[in-house]
Amino acid sequence: MIDITLLGTGGGMPMPNRFLSSMTINYQGEKLLIDCGEGTQVAMRMVKTGFKAISTICITHVHGDHIFGLPGLLSTIGNSNRTEPITIIGPKGIWKVLEGLLVSLPYLPYEINILEAPTYLKSDNLEIRTTELDHSAPCLGYSFYFKRAPKFMPEKAEANNIPKLFWNKLQKGEVIEHKGRILTPDMVLGQDRRGIKICIITDTRPVDTIPEFISDSDLFICEGTYGSNEDIEKAIKNKHMTFQEASELAKKGHVKELLLTHFSPAIEDPELCLQNATNIFGNTVIGYDGLTKTISYSE
Amino acid sequence: MIDITLLGTGGGMPMPNRFLSSMTINYQGEKLLIDCGEGTQVAMRMVKTGFKAISTICITHVHGDHIFGLPGLLSTIGNSNRTEPITIIGPKGIWKVLEGLLVSLPYLPYEINILEAPTYLKSDNLEIRTTELDHSAPCLGYSFYFKRAPKFMPEKAEANNIPKLFWNKLQKGEVIEHKGRILTPDMVLGQDRRGIKICIITDTRPVDTIPEFISDSDLFICEGTYGSNEDIEKAIKNKHMTFQEASELAKKGHVKELLLTHFSPAIEDPELCLQNATNIFGNTVIGYDGLTKTISYSE
Repeated sequence: MIDITLLGTGGGMPMPNRFLSSMTINYQGEKLLIDCGEGTQVAMRMVKTGFKAISTICITHVHGDHIFGLPGLLSTIGNSNRTEPITIIGPKGIWKVLEGLLVSLPYLPYEINILEAPTYLKSDNLEIRTTELDHSAPCLGYSFYFKRAPKFMPEKAEANNIPKLFWNKLQKGEVIEHKGRILTPDMVLGQDRRGIKICIITDTRPVDTIPEFISDSDLFICEGTYGSNEDIEKAIKNKHMTFQEASELAKKGHVKELLLTHFSPAIEDPELCLQNATNIFGNTVIGYDGLTKTISYSE
Repeated sequence: MIDITLLGTGGGMPMPNRFLSSMTINYQGEKLLIDCGEGTQVAMRMVKTGFKAISTICITHVHGDHIFGLPGLLSTIGNSNRTEPITIIGPKGIWKVLEGLLVSLPYLPYEINILEAPTYLKSDNLEIRTTELDHSAPCLGYSFYFKRAPKFMPEKAEANNIPKLFWNKLQKGEVIEHKGRILTPDMVLGQDRRGIKICIITDTRPVDTIPEFISDSDLFICEGTYGSNEDIEKAIKNKHMTFQEASELAKKGHVKELLLTHFSPAIEDPELCLQNATNIFGNTVIGYDGLTKTISYSE
């Protein structure tokens, strides 16, 4: 089970009624933060989510509305005497920009590891993939795949004559030698089960590679800078998307749900443009600051 | 007449209920901004004050709660296609920190002039003085003296036999030669008149030089990080002041009014501690986000 919280849903400039687009993903007690515009730490306080569990910050691109909250957030985290390192992932050029922003934070009590433009990262529970987008600065789309452990099957363990003593260790992935026999996890576990896939695409024009990248996502969070189809020329000029373009990607990618965010300050009520997306992809939700979505395993 | 607006009154960290301590001073269509923590541009939108008229930004010190709003504000100003330069004044070290913060803003359409640790600046209408404070980083206190033009006195002009043709030019400060006679502004003007003095002292311990620096201010804006007298040890340790210490400075400096700001996030309602200041200096006001004070010439 994964919780996604939209901290803000605005693009371009921070506004009194809308924080800048960023979000947290909570899984197994850890927290990913995606983007960190000015005010993100305040938005986190508004939804009462702590700073302590943040392990990784994924930055889509180094435009101010996605990074200018970083110095303040890292400083506030430092004031809580954290010592565990934080990993910051971002596009080409992020190292130089972070180095500049951190001149004013010479004494953080924890390390910052910077991963510049990685394409694939893997840990026990999570796979992160990135894809290059088409914006006015180098920009990464992110795919997060939260793995699910296979089901423990006692009937299979019994059929394989596994002593009960080893069931728990095998379930946890250990390999055991017992009386000259090699016992492996697959002897007690069922088939691989589908995990949860969440994709985040912002800021960009539609790119041909996106549908394959986001394919079969449980949740596809996508920028919808412009609500009206008539704003297509602005979208092209400023390298953003309309609601319609985002929904076309969702349809092509066969995602389960589309969640729109990163609204232009000119859009007062994005709900009024929802139909421009649902005409093409029915299961579309308009994001709002503080919205939390819980995604459960599908099987 | 001068308008001072407190954009925020918090210290340390930006909070959902209180912006970080910063303020604007409006005079003759120009705007000074003093300090710029994270969220300052949002606070400016809240009080509906524009960005366009900002000519000078005075930074007290380079701690995050006083500067992390700068990249966003400068970027937003840039988006409005401003071309007039902005002057940023700050303490020793500000140049290096700004250089770092501005790595992420490579293409601003206007120039930024940085004045590092000046002690005295003078223009036609304004004198700015700074004084070194005692904080955990190099920190400047500011004194702003808004000059007032002498009164035009037609009876004096007539007594001095000045043709009416030249009255206006002389009033504006021009010197004129007419029929072998040198006509000077003092021939039509009254005595010098007192202007308006506004002083800002944050963040610091009390320093012996402050009372002289702030003497006879019309408005003395001072940090009051801690409301309770019992927090004196925290104030000493963190190089801040209690309400009582701020009011003692106000009394020694014979200022007209004390305005407290820069409250610790731990203070929920600073009004509850007002008496700790008024016991010593009666004309004390507790600042709040959005408070505007209008100071008129005294004579």
